[in-house]
Amino acid sequence: MAEKFSFQLMATDGKARRGVIRTPRGEIRTPAFMPVGTAATVKAMMPESVAATGADILLGNTYHLMLRPTAERVDRLGGLHKFMNWSKPILTDSGGFQVMSLSDLRKLTEEGVTFKSHVDGSRHFLSPERSMEIQRLLGSDIVMCFDECPALPADEKRVAQSMRLSMRWAQRSRDAFGDRPGHALFGIMQGGVTPELREESAKALVEIGFDGYAVGGLAVGEGQEAMFGVLDYAPDFLPQDKPRYLMGVGKPDDIVGAVKRGIDMMDCVLPSRSGRTGQAWTRHGMVNIKNARHQDDPRPLDEDCTCPACRNYSRAYLHHVFRAKEMICGMLLTWHNLHYYQELMQGMRDAIEAGRFAAWEAEFHAQRAQGDIAPL
Amino acid sequence: MAEKFSFQLMATDGKARRGVIRTPRGEIRTPAFMPVGTAATVKAMMPESVAATGADILLGNTYHLMLRPTAERVDRLGGLHKFMNWSKPILTDSGGFQVMSLSDLRKLTEEGVTFKSHVDGSRHFLSPERSMEIQRLLGSDIVMCFDECPALPADEKRVAQSMRLSMRWAQRSRDAFGDRPGHALFGIMQGGVTPELREESAKALVEIGFDGYAVGGLAVGEGQEAMFGVLDYAPDFLPQDKPRYLMGVGKPDDIVGAVKRGIDMMDCVLPSRSGRTGQAWTRHGMVNIKNARHQDDPRPLDEDCTCPACRNYSRAYLHHVFRAKEMICGMLLTWHNLHYYQELMQGMRDAIEAGRFAAWEAEFHAQRAQGDIAPL
Repeated sequence: MAEKFSFQLMATDGKARRGVIRTPRGEIRTPAFMPVGTAATVKAMMPESVAATGADILLGNTYHLMLRPTAERVDRLGGLHKFMNWSKPILTDSGGFQVMSLSDLRKLTEEGVTFKSHVDGSRHFLSPERSMEIQRLLGSDIVMCFDECPALPADEKRVAQSMRLSMRWAQRSRDAFGDRPGHALFGIMQGGVTPELREESAKALVEIGFDGYAVGGLAVGEGQEAMFGVLDYAPDFLPQDKPRYLMGVGKPDDIVGAVKRGIDMMDCVLPSRSGRTGQAWTRHGMVNIKNARHQDDPRPLDEDCTCPACRNYSRAYLHHVFRAKEMICGMLLTWHNLHYYQELMQGMRDAIEAGRFAAWEAEFHAQRAQGDIAPL
Repeated sequence: MAEKFSFQLMATDGKARRGVIRTPRGEIRTPAFMPVGTAATVKAMMPESVAATGADILLGNTYHLMLRPTAERVDRLGGLHKFMNWSKPILTDSGGFQVMSLSDLRKLTEEGVTFKSHVDGSRHFLSPERSMEIQRLLGSDIVMCFDECPALPADEKRVAQSMRLSMRWAQRSRDAFGDRPGHALFGIMQGGVTPELREESAKALVEIGFDGYAVGGLAVGEGQEAMFGVLDYAPDFLPQDKPRYLMGVGKPDDIVGAVKRGIDMMDCVLPSRSGRTGQAWTRHGMVNIKNARHQDDPRPLDEDCTCPACRNYSRAYLHHVFRAKEMICGMLLTWHNLHYYQELMQGMRDAIEAGRFAAWEAEFHAQRAQGDIAPL
């Protein structure tokens, strides 16, 4: 395995990129989808099963882990990989986004954010320096800069102020991260939907210098069209030779559109969260297993899928265990969804290598347009 | 595999018995513990994982399955084995016990029991004939007679009346079951804590003739001492050459005491239910993972256990995921508990074969008396 963190761009097709990130904990084939293991577990999954879906890397949430079980405790127990029994790479977010979306009584200053825990009301402080410390204690392989992200829509002045604060925090994150061979620090571009602000942000980050760059401030309620609008130009401000990460995305068609526009990495709770609420993502779109039309259906979710849910169980069974509120429903649907997402990424990686991404994308949309199989 | 159902007694040690039940779906090593898959799933477990713990047979609940998804639907979908992805033997109970404990508005007559579903309030009828039909539709390998079981303590007159009703229902069950090669019908001995009634019941059942015999009416709140009191004599009323099944038992020391007294098969929700509430059974007794003393403990539940929970996770992790209400807590603890129960059965099978059951039992109690490992 690699001693150092590196990124190799292997092929491009239009703006779509096929590459590999090498880390001491293993390779990450890009474009990559990262399942989310918020509280040191990908919900409803054994880590061996997550690996079996083809995931090369997981995302962990700094905000949740700092509150429970705490970064210091995870460190004492040997780090997050050992704690949660996942030996491949882990990316941790900075905590910034979730402080804003989940905590109570936030107070934002130049120094950082003071907030109250949503778990027990205890008071905490996050800053670039503290976020770097927490992510180091967790043992994260890819560390994210601590940033601030306003919800969209927001007026341009607020977006510009916030972006410039995030750029100052990016420099402090870089300084606090220091030199940690084998570990990477990613900067996060902000700037909302304003090209000039995106460009200013990218330049500031590149000036500081990072191992990878995230396109931040998207997937916060702006809609797919606005997101793609930014992705049409924003990745071009970033270096070709570093990985590009779109945070918190998304639905399958969001992911395909992002890869098409030059994104290399994504994460989202959607496949696991959907699985726990009876929703299965297939090449034909989304299947709601709670729908009574499945109750006598002996067919699998997707005839062509090789995941355990599709190989071994009927829609009728999945419907039954959903109705009976049995845990195996969430276990099987989450496995299916994560398997489907990884298959989607593999399909795109193969297509980019073969220079047939456009044809692959057309087929992707055609299959979805067909819709789910007809009822019995 | 065997074409027919058979039981072979391979060794005895005192009253403890080592044997094998052969069925067209595979062998069941006895003494056997049957995990409970109430609603066509052993809660929190994939069936492959249940098999990996060493379980040769599962129990399914007629009452739950007849209400949802219904026996007719399971039959249309190819039977319970295919439905729930379990190819080894399945034993189904008759529904009688759970009609009494779970349903509303029961009305008991000589003919059977009318009741309202606890799921949706719909009205249903169970009788020996209907129970046999449901268990046939489910595709059960070992079918239980439909019986009636009064809660203990109950006065002897009530127990005698109930037992005699159950014996008439046993005859009707036998008649309705008919001749089904490869499938077995077990009778259920009743009679409470009165030796004369137990003997009368056993004689009635043997007169009818069954493939196996359950000791019924125990594990209904009478306590271990009263249960062992009945087990000290009741199995002796049953034929040596047929398997003996103690329904709904129990804690590890209940199981050991039952095997010692000549029981071959048991089932209980305890290992799976305990797993979902943070309780782990080990050779040193029960560990409550929610206890704060585990929060920094890097040691596994049991150093000597080879289950995935003990091989790959610390008590600190299990405590964390319990506190965070993560599904993996129930998944791992259930796996551990079922693994421990099967290891317990294997230990007893080996000890009986080697003629050292008494020594094995002394060691079992000595390890439990030591208690859990000391806090860090």
